[in-house]
Amino acid sequence: METDDYFTMRAAAAPTEAGRYVDGAAMDSVEVLPGLGIRPVVSERMMVNFVSFAPHTEAPMHVHEEEQIAIVVEGDLEVDLDGDVRTLHDGELAIIPAWVPHGMRTHETACREMDIFSPPRRALLQRLEAASAGTPSQMSSGGGVEHGAEKPPSEALP
Amino acid sequence: METDDYFTMRAAAAPTEAGRYVDGAAMDSVEVLPGLGIRPVVSERMMVNFVSFAPHTEAPMHVHEEEQIAIVVEGDLEVDLDGDVRTLHDGELAIIPAWVPHGMRTHETACREMDIFSPPRRALLQRLEAASAGTPSQMSSGGGVEHGAEKPPSEALP
Repeated sequence: METDDYFTMRAAAAPTEAGRYVDGAAMDSVEVLPGLGIRPVVSERMMVNFVSFAPHTEAPMHVHEEEQIAIVVEGDLEVDLDGDVRTLHDGELAIIPAWVPHGMRTHETACREMDIFSPPRRALLQRLEAASAGTPSQMSSGGGVEHGAEKPPSEALP
Repeated sequence: METDDYFTMRAAAAPTEAGRYVDGAAMDSVEVLPGLGIRPVVSERMMVNFVSFAPHTEAPMHVHEEEQIAIVVEGDLEVDLDGDVRTLHDGELAIIPAWVPHGMRTHETACREMDIFSPPRRALLQRLEAASAGTPSQMSSGGGVEHGAEKPPSEALP
């Protein structure tokens, strides 16, 4: 493979921020609904949420302007993608463009999945900011959002 | 939790494309370097690559304008993030803003990780298009890219 354009070190601009490391497993989970916990990692253009569904938990049908990709990691997840209902398993994805109605639910089994948004989902950032500021919310206050401005690389991983 | 803004069905615009399902595990792997295979899923604003590193495989230091988040799924991955070198394990992430130099390598153990880009990484899209068009390349021709325009939802998952 020609590496001239793929593995190039020729930069057309300077970085606007430094890279950083995050230990997703060490993050506190934030409960957005009973049985639905998330661990959010936010970058400038994306948000990666590590999501856990308890059995019999539903994220009701909704829409948002942010594009979303959902990736099932473990367990079974029933997804309703604008009326196309399927049960996804490990390694299966749902691609959810802006404004496409969707919902997710578990039945007998729990599920772990990842939700990736671009840009970061604004309504969730607002919830997280309210929770970390101590504003009354159903979100647990133990959680928070991993963000570059709040955690230098040296603190993110030992 | 107030669900008015988080789980709302109020759309400010119509979707510009339909949602779709993808079975990542069923995709062919594309070899970008010996020992380095990817299964790419592309949406409008993002690209999710399921990446496998054989032992003793290196993605050399490089830069690109696309923002990247790397998430280790299994095994050990040594990451060089602009000089900050760490070995990541399951559930650990590297946040790589635009133009930040980075490289990855395995030593004794293999590694599975996910690379998420926003926007989709242009140089890789060009490689994939060249490979699927039969242009000589070190990429295997058995692979390809999952894209909405190429695969309707009914073909993506049974």
